[in-house]
Amino acid sequence: MKIVNLDHMSANPLVPEVQEAIIAAMRGNYGNPSSQHRMGEKASEILENSRESVAGLINAAAPREVVFTSGGTESVNHAVKGLAWANADKGKHIVTSNIEHTSVIRSMRRLKMMGFQVTSIPVDEYGRVSPDDVARAIRDETILVSIMHSNNEIGTIQPIDEIAGITREKKVLFHVDAVDSVGVVPIDVQKLGVDALSFASNPFYGPTGMGGLYVRRGVKIWPLLEGGIQENNKRAGTENLIGIVGMGVAADLAIRDMESRIAHLTMLKQKLLKELPRYIDEYSINSHQQYSLPNLVSVSLKYIEGESIVLMLDDENIAVSTRSACASGSLRASHVLLSIGLSYADAQGTLVITFGADNSEEDIVRFLEALQGTVNTLRKLSPLYKKAV
Amino acid sequence: MKIVNLDHMSANPLVPEVQEAIIAAMRGNYGNPSSQHRMGEKASEILENSRESVAGLINAAAPREVVFTSGGTESVNHAVKGLAWANADKGKHIVTSNIEHTSVIRSMRRLKMMGFQVTSIPVDEYGRVSPDDVARAIRDETILVSIMHSNNEIGTIQPIDEIAGITREKKVLFHVDAVDSVGVVPIDVQKLGVDALSFASNPFYGPTGMGGLYVRRGVKIWPLLEGGIQENNKRAGTENLIGIVGMGVAADLAIRDMESRIAHLTMLKQKLLKELPRYIDEYSINSHQQYSLPNLVSVSLKYIEGESIVLMLDDENIAVSTRSACASGSLRASHVLLSIGLSYADAQGTLVITFGADNSEEDIVRFLEALQGTVNTLRKLSPLYKKAV
Repeated sequence: MKIVNLDHMSANPLVPEVQEAIIAAMRGNYGNPSSQHRMGEKASEILENSRESVAGLINAAAPREVVFTSGGTESVNHAVKGLAWANADKGKHIVTSNIEHTSVIRSMRRLKMMGFQVTSIPVDEYGRVSPDDVARAIRDETILVSIMHSNNEIGTIQPIDEIAGITREKKVLFHVDAVDSVGVVPIDVQKLGVDALSFASNPFYGPTGMGGLYVRRGVKIWPLLEGGIQENNKRAGTENLIGIVGMGVAADLAIRDMESRIAHLTMLKQKLLKELPRYIDEYSINSHQQYSLPNLVSVSLKYIEGESIVLMLDDENIAVSTRSACASGSLRASHVLLSIGLSYADAQGTLVITFGADNSEEDIVRFLEALQGTVNTLRKLSPLYKKAV
Repeated sequence: MKIVNLDHMSANPLVPEVQEAIIAAMRGNYGNPSSQHRMGEKASEILENSRESVAGLINAAAPREVVFTSGGTESVNHAVKGLAWANADKGKHIVTSNIEHTSVIRSMRRLKMMGFQVTSIPVDEYGRVSPDDVARAIRDETILVSIMHSNNEIGTIQPIDEIAGITREKKVLFHVDAVDSVGVVPIDVQKLGVDALSFASNPFYGPTGMGGLYVRRGVKIWPLLEGGIQENNKRAGTENLIGIVGMGVAADLAIRDMESRIAHLTMLKQKLLKELPRYIDEYSINSHQQYSLPNLVSVSLKYIEGESIVLMLDDENIAVSTRSACASGSLRASHVLLSIGLSYADAQGTLVITFGADNSEEDIVRFLEALQGTVNTLRKLSPLYKKAV
């Protein structure tokens, strides 16, 4: 039985074009982009072609504003720590939000251990940050604001351009974690007006373990990985050339297919949201109606545990998730869901359903039917449910 | 005309078995090792199989002592900074050598900016560190010694086990940058008695942009990349699964073929060293006769520039290097060559020739013939040479 993958957020498949590009790069044996001889020149050319493609995807003013990294987590660590360290002479205060990805949260925690101060601002019931709150949190010693573009658990999209207007006015650097947005929805770093932006290759069907960091020209940042002079002196280490090639091709495809992909994802999302009440009751949708990713639905089901649903659906060859894969294994309730006001019980009863280009309407129907059976079975066993009805 | 690759240090080709494993992993679409469903379990199994293979290559006591990284540079940055930060409560002094890789040097420089003190000890004319010098450099506040296993420009191998005896006795942590040794010569972390050891996948024909960090159980280290709980909480971020699969297969092959590869490389090296005087004069060999890598020859040619030789040999489809690719683009003379006592001129006239499994005796002959012509041509143009003869 075919696996219905409704957990694209955890792992997107590599599209055939990306696979073929990686295979060709391996067979091509391109050498080291830093070498002085011909083998190196070829590698260097391929590297810079990919950089142009990726720069195009986010509309960077110049390809050299893109630094290739080993993924979204490295990009975020590099941005948050690297910007804080490099600008600490101006102050040691940072502003962020309560629903950031663990890579931001833990980087902030580390900076606190190193003498920085962090203000984390709350979000509303849909997970939106208020630009006014950001403005109020900025002090004379503030050097950096870091707010995510879209949330990886509820899909809510933040008013990044408005916040950027504030940070520019107050002359504070602005980093945006856009790992779940770049390649999925249009992102234009120049229009947004941000100073740094983290992203990863897998959300747009490129390889895992590959990412990028946009750093606007002139912004002071320390490298996280130091050594050789690769990546315009911003990120040392011999390049993951096959990964970079894959990311470049994936970026080209994302630019080409952005519109049709969004249309397809939106159709799937609408279908799920519309059909859901025909299959189950006593649930709530956690995302913002207007400002949210087209490929994600977060639904909280009363009286039951998300983990149990995931396991039972897995038996029916349907993959969904309770939260970001990065946080799985943790038994604590999601900080994102608690931040938007969910009770501990409702947070534990939450499913994150993420679509991809390979999903069909039939996948939605199979999921809904399986979910109905699973929810009925689990609620029959639930002491909370028995008490409630 | 076939390219004769005598610059394997910059970029080793991926062996066919590694390519096939990466292709199978891409086609297999294994998902995210951290997911809770079946797709994730398969990925997790593959990840841990690779970890076992890599742990076997360095004889780690347990696979979980191996952390997968994005390459040697990340491993070194993680080890040097992560060990220093995590143990700073015991002291802020570090000991290293004058001929380390730039990733060590720049990590040390960064730590100095953060309040650490670094003692860098000199090497002898062959590039060997004296264990007595290490012992003398260790003070009460010393928390870490970082010495490379083999040097990437001259191939000299350090007395790591003797130094480890000293660090154990003095209760100081010992990190070894073994990027150019692991998979090339036998490395046994338990026999060596080190606390942390950095390595990369490409020196044993695995993918670039993939590496590993051995951290002995119980050693305190901060992560460099923070966020999710991947890699036993030591290195966050969704794993580069296809790279990890490739590294695992490359490790298995390196274990299996270590002896025959070393025999082949040694044969090539001996042939080059023996034949060299028949082709050119006025040169010197920079490596230690006994303690050196089997795949590297560093030769300094009087009166001419290494860069010119590289470019002229490139025209004859022969790839060699003047130094590590990480440092190319820099116009300064190699700190390694100056540290072993070479004059600035001799340092600039140095070639690094590195062999691989795919090289043959014919390659050596073609190189020698081309080198002879190149050296003759360049010396005829050299004002230094005219003055000397």
